[in-house]
Amino acid sequence: MDKNKIMKKPDFHFPPLLKKCKRGGPAVTHPKDAGMIMGYTGIGKHSFVVELGSGSGFMTVQLANIVDKVVSYEKREEFQELAMHNVEKSGLTNVEFKLRDVFEGIDESEVDLIFCDIAQPEKIIEQTHSALKEGGFMAAHCLNIEQAKALHLAAEPIFRNVFTIDCTIQEYDVRDFGTRPKHFGLMHTAYLVFAKK
Amino acid sequence: MDKNKIMKKPDFHFPPLLKKCKRGGPAVTHPKDAGMIMGYTGIGKHSFVVELGSGSGFMTVQLANIVDKVVSYEKREEFQELAMHNVEKSGLTNVEFKLRDVFEGIDESEVDLIFCDIAQPEKIIEQTHSALKEGGFMAAHCLNIEQAKALHLAAEPIFRNVFTIDCTIQEYDVRDFGTRPKHFGLMHTAYLVFAKK
Amino acid sequence: MDKNKIMKKPDFHFPPLLKKCKRGGPAVTHPKDAGMIMGYTGIGKHSFVVELGSGSGFMTVQLANIVDKVVSYEKREEFQELAMHNVEKSGLTNVEFKLRDVFEGIDESEVDLIFCDIAQPEKIIEQTHSALKEGGFMAAHCLNIEQAKALHLAAEPIFRNVFTIDCTIQEYDVRDFGTRPKHFGLMHTAYLVFAKK
Amino acid sequence: MDKNKIMKKPDFHFPPLLKKCKRGGPAVTHPKDAGMIMGYTGIGKHSFVVELGSGSGFMTVQLANIVDKVVSYEKREEFQELAMHNVEKSGLTNVEFKLRDVFEGIDESEVDLIFCDIAQPEKIIEQTHSALKEGGFMAAHCLNIEQAKALHLAAEPIFRNVFTIDCTIQEYDVRDFGTRPKHFGLMHTAYLVFAKK
Repeated sequence: MDKNKIMKKPDFHFPPLLKKCKRGGPAVTHPKDAGMIMGYTGIGKHSFVVELGSGSGFMTVQLANIVDKVVSYEKREEFQELAMHNVEKSGLTNVEFKLRDVFEGIDESEVDLIFCDIAQPEKIIEQTHSALKEGGFMAAHCLNIEQAKALHLAAEPIFRNVFTIDCTIQEYDVRDFGTRPKHFGLMHTAYLVFAKK
Repeated sequence: MDKNKIMKKPDFHFPPLLKKCKRGGPAVTHPKDAGMIMGYTGIGKHSFVVELGSGSGFMTVQLANIVDKVVSYEKREEFQELAMHNVEKSGLTNVEFKLRDVFEGIDESEVDLIFCDIAQPEKIIEQTHSALKEGGFMAAHCLNIEQAKALHLAAEPIFRNVFTIDCTIQEYDVRDFGTRPKHFGLMHTAYLVFAKK
Repeated sequence: MDKNKIMKKPDFHFPPLLKKCKRGGPAVTHPKDAGMIMGYTGIGKHSFVVELGSGSGFMTVQLANIVDKVVSYEKREEFQELAMHNVEKSGLTNVEFKLRDVFEGIDESEVDLIFCDIAQPEKIIEQTHSALKEGGFMAAHCLNIEQAKALHLAAEPIFRNVFTIDCTIQEYDVRDFGTRPKHFGLMHTAYLVFAKK
Repeated sequence: MDKNKIMKKPDFHFPPLLKKCKRGGPAVTHPKDAGMIMGYTGIGKHSFVVELGSGSGFMTVQLANIVDKVVSYEKREEFQELAMHNVEKSGLTNVEFKLRDVFEGIDESEVDLIFCDIAQPEKIIEQTHSALKEGGFMAAHCLNIEQAKALHLAAEPIFRNVFTIDCTIQEYDVRDFGTRPKHFGLMHTAYLVFAKK
């Protein structure tokens, strides 16, 4: 590759919690997006969370680390195995994994947060709503604006408050003689759709 | 005021957790910044956190909601009272308040996270470092780049890994006929300096 | 209106050039977006520009100020009148206005830049391409991502190089004791689609 | 280098105008920043511009392409030669180069725009002000916030209107099945300080 055309990837600053996790096929939920979800939903150590789509388990780990219990659905066995491996390596024991397509139904009720990281979450928006407790949140990690839009519009007639955001981080070069944002970096990672019951 | 020159403030999307909190004089830590700190440090329900500067208590509440215990220092009595009021209204019982100038010393040790929301936190960077456990984090909410720079440069020789970021949220107008970020919004709120022991 | 819920609009920093222009119904092209189009296309004082959609004439003025000649199409008479008024007030004499729906055809050829500020510019993407000289640009001001996407995808098979961007400005509060971006501001204004013949 | 840690540099989308220009030691002014300066100052084909610091000549070319005349000062001979080479390759003949340290004085008067790309432009803020016509602009490309702050504060007591901004571009991946900003990109390039006489 032409040396002038390549550059070092930015440091993602994964927390120590994720350092033992393996990355596999599925996209991971970055700390910035996990953090937005924690911040805007206010989940905490007494919360009960359901995850639709275990993926690589990075979000499962980040959720299980702060809440009381996580139930995580995944239909692909190899993803579930990766997620299980990552949860185990992180020393967390409060996750229940279910190998199942969520379109077949969600067993849980009185949930504080349902985190969606699947394609077409709008297809089960009513089941998602039913499974939540009053005041609970649906939060979704969407890979493109089309997916975010479909979910946002499907949620609006059912939920009390729906909003869609994305978040961009700037990292700074701080030196005695001069301070400025780094010229290159990780920009957008995901659209996040929030809906409050 | 000229009607063409005013506009509605954007919705900050404070989580239900903060809905009963009163805002007083001091700047509050927004959910986006609280979330970044949760995401990048990986604190969780077993963590022990020390807060330097209770301020209005918004961050005290957000921290206490996810961690095991928070000790919060504040030198101004009226701020401490506001913070205590807000923690109580939020139903949290795991916060210990200390009415004291942190420049007189930090009592705690083996801390997972020291969150700084005071002027000139660089003045006690060594005490902050000492109070942390190995692998623990200092994270600071800085109101301007000069403050962030001073802290970043003071932390670099002592800590293993230091980085400074800020985070900007875009909120979207999502309509069937068209989707775009809102034209006006809350942009920068604070610089965040992280340092890992 | 509740005083705590309103705020002053940010200063748009319109250049002196636009100070005499009236705003009417149509959205205006902000200096930031006009500037991006100047910067990325490299149009200059020898350029010949065609504008599809005069709108309020803000972009007509900004273009005519730097290029040799502008031809500006508009199908709505009241918009054309507003644009004509604004061009005249700005003292520019190098604009030819045409009252016509551009879907009926573009008369010009060997054009350096075709600037689109109409709905569904993808419908005349081939005529746009034909009217350009080799190396010329189409640039479009799109109000939402759906419009930008439709145009981008329609341009890709025909043009040599197609890219879609948006640009966000941060304005700074600079004070001796502290510097930081303003907390509120003008964020996204438009998506810009560029296509080079 | 570890293949997982490298990535392709983003396309800067330099306009055809700059394609023949050579990059040398000095930082170049990107089209996004050149565009902001065009947009916010409203310079045009009748404008007279003075550039303090020819650097590599990228900005000289971008300015000369749209204005009537540019005078460009540079104290380092090798930079001046690079800038002259780049202006010549671009086919522009309206630039006068001066090999001189601008701290020794600016000869011109009734200038529409003085563009500063030197260290410590605040040291000659009064001469800069004097050389401008009423309503003219100083605009500066600053590599860090300390430089921008020093200039902004020095300009405020003398100029009518001073503002400091930076601008971030997002480029989009547009595909039929999904649209989102690219994950990595060019973020901040420079702080821009504007001051109107």
